[in-house]
Amino acid sequence: MSGPNVAADHLRLMIERIERLEEEKKGIGDDIRDVYLEGKASGYDTKIMRQIIQLRKMQPHDRQEMEAILQTYLSALGME
Amino acid sequence: MSGPNVAADHLRLMIERIERLEEEKKGIGDDIRDVYLEGKASGYDTKIMRQIIQLRKMQPHDRQEMEAILQTYLSALGME
Repeated sequence: MSGPNVAADHLRLMIERIERLEEEKKGIGDDIRDVYLEGKASGYDTKIMRQIIQLRKMQPHDRQEMEAILQTYLSALGME
Repeated sequence: MSGPNVAADHLRLMIERIERLEEEKKGIGDDIRDVYLEGKASGYDTKIMRQIIQLRKMQPHDRQEMEAILQTYLSALGME
């Protein structure tokens, strides 16, 4: 096989690998959506569920600091 | 177990399921990035690889139509 064909095969294989991975990623995205739909069907607010996911990623100390800053800003804007 | 605890358990299980799925999704995202890095290391332009992925998703007819419209706009803007 000539050089260009080998290169084209390599490119094609990489593209196909990315496509398979994107497909898998989409499948997992669909599974995540299903869990949120299950939450919604059980009466949970999915926006708050998303917030919980974000908050659980943070260290407790960082979360407390963020909440304190949020309170400061709300207070400064007369939103309390 | 009382009602609120059952509900809290259900919520916790859903949150944990989402977290595991997000983790998997992130792993696949990393795998995709690795393929692009492999492409880059082989001398391919990763932006063009991404464009190829998008174009391969389209029907040939739709792609040709898009390319014709793109040419029209480029021409209208004197970018040819």
